[in-house]
Amino acid sequence: MSLLVTGSIGIDTVKTPHGVSERCLGGSSIYFSMAASFFAPVRFVGVVGQDCPFDLPQVFAGRDVDLGGLEVRPGSKTFVWHGTYHDNMNDRTTDHVELNVLQEAPPKVPDAFRDSQFVFLANTAPALQLELLGQMAAPAFVAADTMNLWIDANLDDLKQLLQKIHCLILNDEEAKQLAGQPNLIQAAEDILAMGMEVIIIKKGESGSLMCSSNGDKFLLPAYPATEVIDPTGAGDSFAGGFLGYVAESGRTDFDTLKLAVAYGTVTASFTIAGFSLDGLTGTSRAAIDQRLKDLRQFTSF
Amino acid sequence: MSLLVTGSIGIDTVKTPHGVSERCLGGSSIYFSMAASFFAPVRFVGVVGQDCPFDLPQVFAGRDVDLGGLEVRPGSKTFVWHGTYHDNMNDRTTDHVELNVLQEAPPKVPDAFRDSQFVFLANTAPALQLELLGQMAAPAFVAADTMNLWIDANLDDLKQLLQKIHCLILNDEEAKQLAGQPNLIQAAEDILAMGMEVIIIKKGESGSLMCSSNGDKFLLPAYPATEVIDPTGAGDSFAGGFLGYVAESGRTDFDTLKLAVAYGTVTASFTIAGFSLDGLTGTSRAAIDQRLKDLRQFTSF
Repeated sequence: MSLLVTGSIGIDTVKTPHGVSERCLGGSSIYFSMAASFFAPVRFVGVVGQDCPFDLPQVFAGRDVDLGGLEVRPGSKTFVWHGTYHDNMNDRTTDHVELNVLQEAPPKVPDAFRDSQFVFLANTAPALQLELLGQMAAPAFVAADTMNLWIDANLDDLKQLLQKIHCLILNDEEAKQLAGQPNLIQAAEDILAMGMEVIIIKKGESGSLMCSSNGDKFLLPAYPATEVIDPTGAGDSFAGGFLGYVAESGRTDFDTLKLAVAYGTVTASFTIAGFSLDGLTGTSRAAIDQRLKDLRQFTSF
Repeated sequence: MSLLVTGSIGIDTVKTPHGVSERCLGGSSIYFSMAASFFAPVRFVGVVGQDCPFDLPQVFAGRDVDLGGLEVRPGSKTFVWHGTYHDNMNDRTTDHVELNVLQEAPPKVPDAFRDSQFVFLANTAPALQLELLGQMAAPAFVAADTMNLWIDANLDDLKQLLQKIHCLILNDEEAKQLAGQPNLIQAAEDILAMGMEVIIIKKGESGSLMCSSNGDKFLLPAYPATEVIDPTGAGDSFAGGFLGYVAESGRTDFDTLKLAVAYGTVTASFTIAGFSLDGLTGTSRAAIDQRLKDLRQFTSF
């Protein structure tokens, strides 16, 4: 079924203990779309400036990603992000950011995309996420990401958003901050009380936690990867694998969402094995399915 | 089958955000024995000074814990530990330690205990662990704990120990330190190369990881506890539930060890719900089995 993503497209420069990747393709909607395309057709909505050095139709050639919502805005400049990962690969420093086109008006959702059943609102200002969501007709399942910046500075907008989406995906530090509660299980319950049906808390190399408003819980370790070259995009690849599988199955019952979290987890494990999109583009649905089987073996008792 | 533990008995003073527990019963062999006694008879080896304020036969009354290896040493003083847990309940500060009897000669393993099939060498100087192990006849499965202090200061002794035991249980920071490697999966493999067959790495609220020298892996989240009053003894209760189940089953194949890790995990979840032994003594095997079923439900997909 139809899956739409709106998010950033970035010119990334990433330093890790394994090397440097300069001015490579990044951004939340890029990682999400590449990951989700292993499962379901993706409708892409995003904006770049006229300086964008990437040929996105070429990047997604042969994959079922509809770039009908890609806007190249004359006179604007593309989002730029520079980051450094430290030895343990969990902590990163943002060295440099140029928001550029991301601080202008958001892209328009094409008419042909407004009937999308599944929607991912990648991390941006919650007011923009609300505006983008307002352009959709009647989506069955909307998931959104957020970050510490909006929890600090735009909490009212964020709380309004949380009443209009079905699923919030965020990391452990953000969840503790939003709930004002150091116990993650309790934080999940407190955030669910703000409105949505499902919350997924990502814990990096420690896996993830999903809780629903009717008391279901799911806990999954990360895939045991020894090859970690560049963690950039892992979170958006997780979301892409998760929503890609949800859209493929067309269901949102908790058992389906559990399997979707597992697919998100193994999809992200490919992303981190290379710089930029190299890890994702080098894999296949068969390889993703094999890791899913392995992860089930590693976690069952 | 027979299970022996050697470890500390302590007079603990613990501060957490939930309160203070002064001069309460603690120590690795105490938590281990209480936890393991839900599964199998325990043979207890440990030493206190003549100042020990606790009536250990009363503490273990009604439980199958043989205190035949408890030595009350005249003229010596009991081990004392003061610690403070901070808001997130993962970090703790040791405020005060008096090793006292723990820096004297180790206790003697009674003749009647020397044929024990399963052995846990709780955390102490590796030379002492070697000496205690040397008093055993031919144990089938020996597990040991260690800590940063010995990795820093007694690495040669520790490496000698690792060649004589079957299973090492330690936490994530200790594993990274011992392997000199920030990736936990790689650290597990590097440590296995030092001699033992199985390594279990505890990650606190993020669960645990078990790897074997023939490539098996098991990843398990922590039980999703919202009631965390005092984490003291969680690691030793984990070890007690783990080895208790191993001794009960009498097997050490990887599938049995996976189930044993799950039992260790849920047993520890009771320990942290109260100060000192309150969480453990207030539970039952039936309640432990129910949490095991719940944990399987929370983690399967």
